[in-house]
Amino acid sequence: MLSENQKHMLENKALAIRIDSIRATTASQSGHPTSCLSASDIISVLFFSVLNYDYENPLNPNNDRFILSKGHAIPVVYATLKQIGVISDSELLSLRKVDSRLEGHPTPRFPYNEAATGSLGQGLSIGLGMALNARFDKRNYKTYVMMGDGEVAEGSIWEAAELASFYKLNNLIGILDCNRLGQSDETQHGHEVERYRKKFEAFGWKTCVINGHDINEIYKAFEESAKPHEQPFIIIAKTMKGYGLEACENKEGFHGKPFKKEEAEVAIARLKERFAHAASFQGSAHTPPTPQKELLKPHALIEPDITQENFKIGSKIATRKAYGYALAALGRASKDVYVLDADVKNSTFTELFEKEFPNRFVQCFIAEQNMVGISAGLALRGKIPFAATFGAFFSRAFDQIRMAGIGHNALRLCGSHCGVSIGEDGPSQMALEDLAMMRSVPNSIVLYPSDATSAYKLCTTAANYHDGVSYLRTTRMETPILYSAQEEFPLGGCKVLRQSNNDVACLVGAGVTLHEALKAYELLAKEGISVSVIDLYSIKPLDSKTLTKVARKSREHIITIEDHYKAGGIGEAVSSSLINENIKIKQLYVHDVSRSGQPEELLALAGIDAKSIYDAVKEIL
Amino acid sequence: MLSENQKHMLENKALAIRIDSIRATTASQSGHPTSCLSASDIISVLFFSVLNYDYENPLNPNNDRFILSKGHAIPVVYATLKQIGVISDSELLSLRKVDSRLEGHPTPRFPYNEAATGSLGQGLSIGLGMALNARFDKRNYKTYVMMGDGEVAEGSIWEAAELASFYKLNNLIGILDCNRLGQSDETQHGHEVERYRKKFEAFGWKTCVINGHDINEIYKAFEESAKPHEQPFIIIAKTMKGYGLEACENKEGFHGKPFKKEEAEVAIARLKERFAHAASFQGSAHTPPTPQKELLKPHALIEPDITQENFKIGSKIATRKAYGYALAALGRASKDVYVLDADVKNSTFTELFEKEFPNRFVQCFIAEQNMVGISAGLALRGKIPFAATFGAFFSRAFDQIRMAGIGHNALRLCGSHCGVSIGEDGPSQMALEDLAMMRSVPNSIVLYPSDATSAYKLCTTAANYHDGVSYLRTTRMETPILYSAQEEFPLGGCKVLRQSNNDVACLVGAGVTLHEALKAYELLAKEGISVSVIDLYSIKPLDSKTLTKVARKSREHIITIEDHYKAGGIGEAVSSSLINENIKIKQLYVHDVSRSGQPEELLALAGIDAKSIYDAVKEIL
Repeated sequence: MLSENQKHMLENKALAIRIDSIRATTASQSGHPTSCLSASDIISVLFFSVLNYDYENPLNPNNDRFILSKGHAIPVVYATLKQIGVISDSELLSLRKVDSRLEGHPTPRFPYNEAATGSLGQGLSIGLGMALNARFDKRNYKTYVMMGDGEVAEGSIWEAAELASFYKLNNLIGILDCNRLGQSDETQHGHEVERYRKKFEAFGWKTCVINGHDINEIYKAFEESAKPHEQPFIIIAKTMKGYGLEACENKEGFHGKPFKKEEAEVAIARLKERFAHAASFQGSAHTPPTPQKELLKPHALIEPDITQENFKIGSKIATRKAYGYALAALGRASKDVYVLDADVKNSTFTELFEKEFPNRFVQCFIAEQNMVGISAGLALRGKIPFAATFGAFFSRAFDQIRMAGIGHNALRLCGSHCGVSIGEDGPSQMALEDLAMMRSVPNSIVLYPSDATSAYKLCTTAANYHDGVSYLRTTRMETPILYSAQEEFPLGGCKVLRQSNNDVACLVGAGVTLHEALKAYELLAKEGISVSVIDLYSIKPLDSKTLTKVARKSREHIITIEDHYKAGGIGEAVSSSLINENIKIKQLYVHDVSRSGQPEELLALAGIDAKSIYDAVKEIL
Repeated sequence: MLSENQKHMLENKALAIRIDSIRATTASQSGHPTSCLSASDIISVLFFSVLNYDYENPLNPNNDRFILSKGHAIPVVYATLKQIGVISDSELLSLRKVDSRLEGHPTPRFPYNEAATGSLGQGLSIGLGMALNARFDKRNYKTYVMMGDGEVAEGSIWEAAELASFYKLNNLIGILDCNRLGQSDETQHGHEVERYRKKFEAFGWKTCVINGHDINEIYKAFEESAKPHEQPFIIIAKTMKGYGLEACENKEGFHGKPFKKEEAEVAIARLKERFAHAASFQGSAHTPPTPQKELLKPHALIEPDITQENFKIGSKIATRKAYGYALAALGRASKDVYVLDADVKNSTFTELFEKEFPNRFVQCFIAEQNMVGISAGLALRGKIPFAATFGAFFSRAFDQIRMAGIGHNALRLCGSHCGVSIGEDGPSQMALEDLAMMRSVPNSIVLYPSDATSAYKLCTTAANYHDGVSYLRTTRMETPILYSAQEEFPLGGCKVLRQSNNDVACLVGAGVTLHEALKAYELLAKEGISVSVIDLYSIKPLDSKTLTKVARKSREHIITIEDHYKAGGIGEAVSSSLINENIKIKQLYVHDVSRSGQPEELLALAGIDAKSIYDAVKEIL
């Protein structure tokens, strides 16, 4: 029960947060003050009476987590953290300036931002990952996710809502700031908050509908959320955009519009007048108790032992299957390794991990956006999550992957069934743009093994890469093992598999096209024609040094062959990297939409099989 | 009310469909027979007693539409069309063969496939577009979308569900084939079909739960769906995967597993035994009446008159705003032009179209996947839809865009707010990978105007491009108008804006970087250094001929400058295209995650402002 004094304090803080949200956005002359005003009362109650948080260490694994999914309202959090003493007033007023940690939407440059948000509808999945993490680690912290009503039109919200209820995550608390107004229009449900209640209940959540500007109601809702229950919990708060200022309160046309300096002064005066009682508070503010001090543990190097696998040179095994073996081995080597699936575990072979570690396996069903968001949440809490699906279907989660790049989140993604070589299932199932997509992510690494040994070892590389997104591209069909267990695959390297003193060209392949290149090598050898062959297992970073060196000894001719479209693929990466080296490059790639057919037929149709490579070499001569 | 004879016929057809689904997948030794068996009874009733369809002309605008969102079950449709006489038995048995129109998942190579599906969860949005189209054109056809229960975990389904109810699309009928089993696991709700009812009702749909193997119940459900109602309607059918064959019926482990030849023979014999009554039907089959014959009208060339706009060389206007003017002009020139928004119409300036043509403007709210899916549905029905949002947020719909590429759907997408030049909002709002994404789509065109005139004219190019996806990249900030109304911008061309006999390098820019290049030109000119400058308004196709020609006269040096990441961007496109021309290329691009700040500061930080270009030229000298 809220005491009068405490209520007075919370009202006072809400007022201060409102004022500072306005001051900060006015100082930057950009931002979304009215979106802050609708959330201020809830944020005040949450931070000053609910959140158990160690403000000396935002990474403390015992901290409650708070994710602002409606990222454009982040000044409301900065204003709050000023009240708590985390930032100074002058830092607050540096909002959105080029040298400030306080960006327009949350990024990890400010460590109190739990996750990069601002592309809407993503916060609930990240929170779901954090709530799962608490369960995995048997920790008591709670995860709070504040959403705007506009963003719950995003399907990703419902992917997360469904899975959170499936896993009965009663430690996940959603807060819906229903301020009725989107950027340019009223939302679909406007202020019919019961519509949201009905939806979340249908999705298995416990709901609580409140007036989001009544401190007592807000407090009670959080109290309610703390009582024992078996489902995720959502507070659906009816609020007013611009609350506190009659001139813009609940009115269209004020989204993302900061007040001019003079307007801000009038607005602040008006707020102090309207909330005169709140302004009169004299006591001191308290935040809830700090949880036990603890540091997020650093990652240890994981080194599974590949000699335990039965990988014999020449024997055939699909890289996607070797990935499954590698996951299981990583699982044995580290308790931090978790694996996520989108109902294709028998295709990606993540089932090999699940069999051994069912408690560290998360079935996310057919909802790739949510799977990636959960991965981000787990990674941010120190886990080493691997998520796999068909490479084509990661396009479904490109926005989440993009945001993970901005957040420097260590996602480990594996896309199986790349390219036309999957065969009969046809173009909808073929990843032919995944390299372009994954290469574009800042700080990403992109790995493309051609055999089981390299797949296994590159999977380990991903496990130990903590600075951003890693992507491993695996192949459906079986390919012969090329490398012994002793072979190393340093990040940013490549393997020169064939080389002589008479090479007329250098063939650069990866995955299935490497094997086609090796076949072409044999065809050409029969005619006395020598070529060098390179396994480009590391697409990003790219070993342009070795490529150049080998090309110099191969009549300065490279032929890249890839089971991928041209744009953003291997040929473009190599060309752009060697453009100033006076090397001729011929690019073989998939030109157009493929079709159903046998893998060999489709490789031939696309012009990336051994015969096409052979022809390309002959053309050069 | 269903007569006994008609019921008998429908049961007979269901049996034939089952048998042929098995025969086809056995012939191809790949495919998903058990997913066909759960749907066969519903498909029989739908095709033989519900669908009004002109089988001589699948494009007839009066046809009812049927979209198989669970695309892997497409043999069930092929088997049905054999019964109707559209395909022969031998064509049926060509399923998934390289020279067959009948692919493993639906593609438009077979014209009776309404849309390319197979990436799950996309069909309802496409159907929504078609249902909207019927309303726009005041046509009576209905749109039926069959979904699997596994795929309704995809958030895109709920984006579509919400909007369909918002627009009260009572001509849209969903069919949920709840066969309980996904690919690798039971679905989240298993056979608890009431959970789906609750969800769809919460999303505003009228629901009808049935036994999906009871012909009477199925028939009644469709009858019910035909009665007057104000909401979209969904038939939630409890079914068994593999229904009819005890060995696999409702059992895990049979997804995507065709029967071997001998197994198929046993299975077919068993089906004939189990459905002996159905097998005994002797009468003739009828399909429902064919709708009025009509051809889908071909697209006329749209030519709006740019001289009506007040575009004066040198005056400043953002390309995003010119896009809005162009849309309005296109709307005046053609009644087929429609515009879709994701609640950012005041940022993308699609509001300029809405103001004039509110009835041809579709507010999709913050749900980009659905917006793109609706666009596909409208385009497939002959409309010319334009969809716009921040370029960054199209990454949310990459899978839908990818599938539109496979479907050769003429989406017209405009991504505003590209690059770091948006400034203070920070990295989450900056499109820096959109060129990579859009270039990778087969048959796409990618246009990037630098001024209002070219934005307007390239928007017209997109309106008249019907062979695939077109993408227009627009800029937030105002830029000076460079071109007169008479200037033409042919697809695949570029503009040489500066050229002399003494050029030491060729600067290639587009959008904001073109203006920075022009500033650099002035800085260099002051020092007596000449460079050529090219406006690369057509990124795909790319004018490598002109680039080469100008580079030859610019000391064979090109500097590309782009407000985009390296991967898949302008520098890579140009490099890979000119790799064999002995031209040196220096690429200036955004290296890392950007931040909040003023546009000019961020351009400088990224090294793509005039000063950086100036430095790059000096370095070459």
